Amino acid sequence: MAGEFDLIRRHFARATPATTLGPGDDCALLTPSPGQTLAVTTDMLVAGVHFAPDADPEGLGWKTLAVNVSDLAAMGAKPRWALLAGALPNADDDWIGAFARGFFACAARYQLDLVGGDTTRGPLTLSVTAIGELPAGLALRRDGAREGDDLWISGTPGLAALALAARQGRTTLPATLRSACDTALDTPTPRVELGLALREEHLAHAAIDVSDGLLADLTHILVRSALAAEVDLGELAPAPEGVASALWHDCLLAGGDDYELLFTAPSAHRQAIAALAKRLALPLTRCGRLHAGTPGALSVRNRNGDPLTLTRRGYDHFG
Amino acid sequence: MAGEFDLIRRHFARATPATTLGPGDDCALLTPSPGQTLAVTTDMLVAGVHFAPDADPEGLGWKTLAVNVSDLAAMGAKPRWALLAGALPNADDDWIGAFARGFFACAARYQLDLVGGDTTRGPLTLSVTAIGELPAGLALRRDGAREGDDLWISGTPGLAALALAARQGRTTLPATLRSACDTALDTPTPRVELGLALREEHLAHAAIDVSDGLLADLTHILVRSALAAEVDLGELAPAPEGVASALWHDCLLAGGDDYELLFTAPSAHRQAIAALAKRLALPLTRCGRLHAGTPGALSVRNRNGDPLTLTRRGYDHFG
Repeated sequence: MAGEFDLIRRHFARATPATTLGPGDDCALLTPSPGQTLAVTTDMLVAGVHFAPDADPEGLGWKTLAVNVSDLAAMGAKPRWALLAGALPNADDDWIGAFARGFFACAARYQLDLVGGDTTRGPLTLSVTAIGELPAGLALRRDGAREGDDLWISGTPGLAALALAARQGRTTLPATLRSACDTALDTPTPRVELGLALREEHLAHAAIDVSDGLLADLTHILVRSALAAEVDLGELAPAPEGVASALWHDCLLAGGDDYELLFTAPSAHRQAIAALAKRLALPLTRCGRLHAGTPGALSVRNRNGDPLTLTRRGYDHFG
Repeated sequence: MAGEFDLIRRHFARATPATTLGPGDDCALLTPSPGQTLAVTTDMLVAGVHFAPDADPEGLGWKTLAVNVSDLAAMGAKPRWALLAGALPNADDDWIGAFARGFFACAARYQLDLVGGDTTRGPLTLSVTAIGELPAGLALRRDGAREGDDLWISGTPGLAALALAARQGRTTLPATLRSACDTALDTPTPRVELGLALREEHLAHAAIDVSDGLLADLTHILVRSALAAEVDLGELAPAPEGVASALWHDCLLAGGDDYELLFTAPSAHRQAIAALAKRLALPLTRCGRLHAGTPGALSVRNRNGDPLTLTRRGYDHFG
C-alpha cells in the first residue's frame, strides 16, 4: 500500500498557499473570493489519441494542465485551482517525476494550486479539472458576439497542426520552423493574460480557445451567437516557405491544438486591441467579420480575395 | 464532426438549475453561496481495474458519480455540481444512453448539476470531479479525531467485497445475500444525509468514506490525527451463513468499494448518534475506540475478544 501513496506524495505534494485544505483528505476545501463567479472546465488526454505514447513526459505534464488553463483564459477567468486524475500503465518513478515537473511548471506560471487528484493503474490517460474566478456577469462567453464584430485571433494559428504533419511525414520543415511548430504542439501557451485583459478592459464580446481548429471553434461562437462570418486569409500568416498552400490552409483553418484565443470585438476597439497586442508582445490579427445570416454559416477568402472551398472544419474524435 | 457533439448533447444535455452557465462554453460558471467553502474531489474509474469491461452501463453511470458524491459526504458537504470526462472505445449510442440514465439518476437523487465534461475516443475510462458546499470551518476532516473518541461505521461494510469474491468464484452466496452484495458493489449509496447530519449537529470529530477498506481508511484518520485505535469485530455483523469467517474478516476489514462512512465521535454523543441512525433508517455501529499511541497503530479483537492477526489493510493500485 505504501507504494502508491508514497509515489504520488513524493512527486505531487506541493504547497497550496491559495487553498483552505489541500490534498490528503476526502476533498480539498477552497474558499472563493467574495463576489466572484467560478469558471470550471475539464479535459481528458489519452495516449495514442491526443499524444504519442512515448511523448516527453515533462512536456506532457505542461500540456495536460495548459489545455485546461486555456479554457479558463477563453472565459477571461483568473486561474486558481486544479485537480489531476491519471491512469498509468505502471509506476515509473522517472516518468512520473518528469511529468510532475512539467505540470508544476505550468501551475507555477499561471498560479494554480493542485488541490486534489486520483491515481490508478490503467492505459495512460490524464484528466484535469481547472477552476478559475472572475467577477459575476463579465465572462467572455461564446454567445456574446454581435453583428458587425471584427474577428480576431492571437499568435500564429496552424503551427501545432504543421508539427503534426511533419511528424506524420506529410511535409518537411526547416529546423527553425520545425522547432517553433514542435513547441506550439508540445508545450502550448495558454493566453491567460490576453483573456484577462480582454475581460478587464471590456474589449471583446465573445471568445473561445482554438482546440478543434479555427473554423470549428468559430462555428461554436456563430451558432451560439446566431451569426454568420466571413474569414479573410489575407490577414493571416502566409504559407511558410516550402509548405504547400493546401496543407497550410488545412493547418490554419482546421488544425487543432493551437490554444490561441479567437475573439470578436466591435470595430471601435481596433486601436485598443492593437495597443494590447503591443503591451503583451503577442500578435493579435484581425481576420474577418461577423454578420447577420444563417447561424454558423462561414465563407473564407484567400489571399487574392477569392472564395476558398472548405473541406473540413475540425476534428471529431468519433468521426 | 456532428457525430461527437450530437451524441454527447443528446444524452448529457440536461437542465442545470443551480448553475449560472451550464455545459456548452469553454467553462461552466458557478456561483457559490455566500460564506460557503467549496469541497472538491476527483475520482477516475478504469475498465478492467475498477469495473468489468462488460459491466452494466446504467449501474456504472450511477457508481461513477456516486463514488465522488461519497467523498463530499465524508466531508459533510452538500453536493452541488459535477463534471464528467470519459474516454470511450466507440460511440455506442445504447451504451452511452444507459450510462447517462444511471449517472443522472444519481445526480437527481443527490441534487447535482452536471456542468461540464469532455469525451474522447480511448480505452474505457471515466473521470468525475464533484463540487459541494459547506460552511467555512465545519468540514469533517481526517485530522479532527480526538483521544477517547468512539469509532463508528455506517451500513454493513464488507458486502461489496463479498460480491467480488462471489464473482471470482471464491465463495457462493444464497440468492438474497448475493443480490444485496451486488447492489453494494454495483450501485453504492453515498451517505450524504449522514454526512450532512453529522456536520450540522456537530456529532463527529472526523470522518472518511470507506473506499480502500475499513482498516486502510481508518489508518488515514489515525495518521492524520496522530492516534492509535482498537477495532472490535464483536459489534460488526457476523459472517453470513455459509461464508468462511476468514473471508468475511477480509471483506469486512480490507474490502474496498463499500462507501460507508467511518467516523469518530465523543462518547457523550452515543445517544444522539443512535437517534440519528433511527431517523435515517441507517445502521450506525460503534466498532472501536481511539487512543493515544503510535500514530496509525491498530489492533483488532474478534468476537471472542481475542486479538486478530492482520494480513493486509487495503488495496494498492500499484502493489
